[in-house]
Amino acid sequence: MRYSRINLHGRAVFAEIADGLAHVLDGDPLSGPAHRTGSRVPTASVDFLPPVVPGVFYAVGYNYRSHVEHYGARAPERPEVGYRANNALTGHRSPIVRPAGVTGRFEAEGEVVAVIGRTLKKASRNEAQESIFGWTIGNDVSAREWQHADRTFWRSKNSDTFKPMGPWIETGVDPLAQTTTVRVDGTVKARFATGDMIFDPFDFIVETSKYITLRPGDVLWMGADSNVQLEPGRTVEIEISGIGTLSNPVLEEK
Amino acid sequence: MRYSRINLHGRAVFAEIADGLAHVLDGDPLSGPAHRTGSRVPTASVDFLPPVVPGVFYAVGYNYRSHVEHYGARAPERPEVGYRANNALTGHRSPIVRPAGVTGRFEAEGEVVAVIGRTLKKASRNEAQESIFGWTIGNDVSAREWQHADRTFWRSKNSDTFKPMGPWIETGVDPLAQTTTVRVDGTVKARFATGDMIFDPFDFIVETSKYITLRPGDVLWMGADSNVQLEPGRTVEIEISGIGTLSNPVLEEK
Repeated sequence: MRYSRINLHGRAVFAEIADGLAHVLDGDPLSGPAHRTGSRVPTASVDFLPPVVPGVFYAVGYNYRSHVEHYGARAPERPEVGYRANNALTGHRSPIVRPAGVTGRFEAEGEVVAVIGRTLKKASRNEAQESIFGWTIGNDVSAREWQHADRTFWRSKNSDTFKPMGPWIETGVDPLAQTTTVRVDGTVKARFATGDMIFDPFDFIVETSKYITLRPGDVLWMGADSNVQLEPGRTVEIEISGIGTLSNPVLEEK
Repeated sequence: MRYSRINLHGRAVFAEIADGLAHVLDGDPLSGPAHRTGSRVPTASVDFLPPVVPGVFYAVGYNYRSHVEHYGARAPERPEVGYRANNALTGHRSPIVRPAGVTGRFEAEGEVVAVIGRTLKKASRNEAQESIFGWTIGNDVSAREWQHADRTFWRSKNSDTFKPMGPWIETGVDPLAQTTTVRVDGTVKARFATGDMIFDPFDFIVETSKYITLRPGDVLWMGADSNVQLEPGRTVEIEISGIGTLSNPVLEEK
């Protein structure tokens, strides 16, 4: 099943995506049963929102070996989460806006995202696996000069529109058996095995939940293998096989 | 006016605190008019929840000169926000639980908290001042050995119960003219001028909103002057004059 959140006449509603249609639901499938209302919209004309607004927005830093090597960084020895901020979320097809004043590398990272479906604390690996509601796609956009100049990731990674997520949550896929492909204006710029991680999502959930209660709707962005330069006027696509394609045009702030 | 969120028979509701009573409201005063329902509870028996669950939980690091000097750190040259996580929030009177395995300094920091009441981007200083819904109190609990050992603040500052907030939001106070007092079992352990900040809340809002949309319910924890050691079996109180007193017992994880 594929679940989206969409803007329907100014109201955020959940929808099931099937056969090229968004079937509007009468509730939030993350919090209980949700049924088709009968209202439906062709996906081509849907205004996609981020498929979930998390209570906590977890994100993994270095988690692919070649990414660690690219930066000459030390590989992490433990699965330690970081955080991103909800203001930065934006939906499939919405623009990534490069703020005025950004110079240097302005980069996309294509990431698989775990969406938590259960409340859990001190989870076993099996409980971690069963806690997943589904999987979506994230683009962890970064302004590198700010990342290096600032004390925190506040504007380098959390400026408005820097965290596209979507287009939907796929509930029936093994993300570790997939391929991530990043394209700019249709040209492949990066391709890697989605599952080629140093620590997998369940490692992170087990470790995090030793101290932290995870709740339905929390998201965990799993890091990327490669960085891809973005320029205003171009469109970036993150495809993860078995899930879908997250596409966003890049604009320059006016 | 003083607004709380309370647990009423298993349901989270908003309440106005006056004359020793929590007057239950029919809505969320942060999102629109809310009126007394007639139901009321003596504050002495109220189960206080964090007064707001933020969309984004902003927190300031070093922001008092003596705190910077204590750590031999470099004073910040710009007002740069960091983040904390909602799972760690807990209410007035609820326990701070020290996880098994924590050794070394386990410390409280008493902080004034700005609660945002309006959506704002690229705010002027005047707009920043007008965007405030009110002020509450936060205790930024930290496990220092984890803080030094880990790549991020995930468990050192964001373990469950490490972020008591409350007891209410006070809408009619100038926080910069107040005094913060930290007590353990009634003994004063720290006292400082709340307003003696390197950058004040409006400096942070102006700078952050250059790139980031702030929204009603977002919170900004303003940092502390002093650290106070916590031990299981004791009770920590943060009093900020004009706002109130946030009190939490400290327990050891079983």
